[in-house]
Amino acid sequence: MNDTYPSRLLERAVAEISKLPGIGRKTALRLALYLLRQEAAQTHALANALLSLRDEVCHCRVCHNVSDNDLCEICANPRRDAATVCVVENVSGVLSVEATGQYRGLYHVLGGLISPMDGVGPGDLEIASLCERVGAGGVNEVILALSPTMEGDTTGFYISRRLAETGVLITTLARGVSVGDDLEYTDEATLGRALAARVKMN
Amino acid sequence: MNDTYPSRLLERAVAEISKLPGIGRKTALRLALYLLRQEAAQTHALANALLSLRDEVCHCRVCHNVSDNDLCEICANPRRDAATVCVVENVSGVLSVEATGQYRGLYHVLGGLISPMDGVGPGDLEIASLCERVGAGGVNEVILALSPTMEGDTTGFYISRRLAETGVLITTLARGVSVGDDLEYTDEATLGRALAARVKMN
Repeated sequence: MNDTYPSRLLERAVAEISKLPGIGRKTALRLALYLLRQEAAQTHALANALLSLRDEVCHCRVCHNVSDNDLCEICANPRRDAATVCVVENVSGVLSVEATGQYRGLYHVLGGLISPMDGVGPGDLEIASLCERVGAGGVNEVILALSPTMEGDTTGFYISRRLAETGVLITTLARGVSVGDDLEYTDEATLGRALAARVKMN
Repeated sequence: MNDTYPSRLLERAVAEISKLPGIGRKTALRLALYLLRQEAAQTHALANALLSLRDEVCHCRVCHNVSDNDLCEICANPRRDAATVCVVENVSGVLSVEATGQYRGLYHVLGGLISPMDGVGPGDLEIASLCERVGAGGVNEVILALSPTMEGDTTGFYISRRLAETGVLITTLARGVSVGDDLEYTDEATLGRALAARVKMN
């Protein structure tokens, strides 16, 4: 199929949709034509939801998770155990650990993993804020719940080194999770067992 | 993964994205988090492209194809052969036929196919306008380029009956084996019709 669309508006929509990961021009065209067949209200709701998300969402000042407020619901919840901090790569990590139903502590969202290949260094992540948070006291255990990949291991090792002097207990997920897998796609049962069998690192 | 998102904005975006065909909640979440990681400008461009498409795009008053103007570029092009009208189901049909590079006539976009199962009758499609267009004169041939399915055949048959009295030449796409197909895997119906419609080679 060539790329001469009958409408510039359609062409622009297809171009923008196909910038999303995993969506090619053919799928983008299918989605655009689908929206044209539906009520205009659906497109308005979709576009407004995207704009609100991008412009209004903020990050929790404590754990840096995506949040609607300055302090996220988990950090603001007095029934959560503030002495335990689970370090995750991103929002998906929080959702994955929450889905196990086994964790009652707080989180710390790094915003990525150390990856020299992609030009991501420790300074690009929320590691300094983690050290500050732990250094301020009140935290007994830091659980590293990072993907069991080269980047995850590197990041975990770096963090454990940085936190060594604080004397805090540092644990990491048990290697029940298969090496090379993405945490986002690990099933709850596996992740739950890995969380329960976490191993002391220092 | 359960459905307790850390942000209502994120939850709403995921809900709206996952209304698109073929996109589940997990993919929707991945897309939403992707947009959050990108520059805000990308989300703005995407949302605005969708809003412009839905609110500003119109349909050509002659062929009913999606268009930015009252008359689409194909209908407005004086070098196209106005005596030939190719009837297609939707915009994708126009794009597919255009992609062959072999067609210089005009189009007529039905906006669907007759499908009693889905409650789509002839009155829901641009069939009356096709009859009017052909009845007004100047059209020598109507090519039915509809999907070779039950709905496509039904719609084509209905149109050919409606146009019978105008005396216009009505043709339909040749049925036969697909180029590049293995004969071993061609279904009986297709092979049967290809055999019946065999073409003299010398």
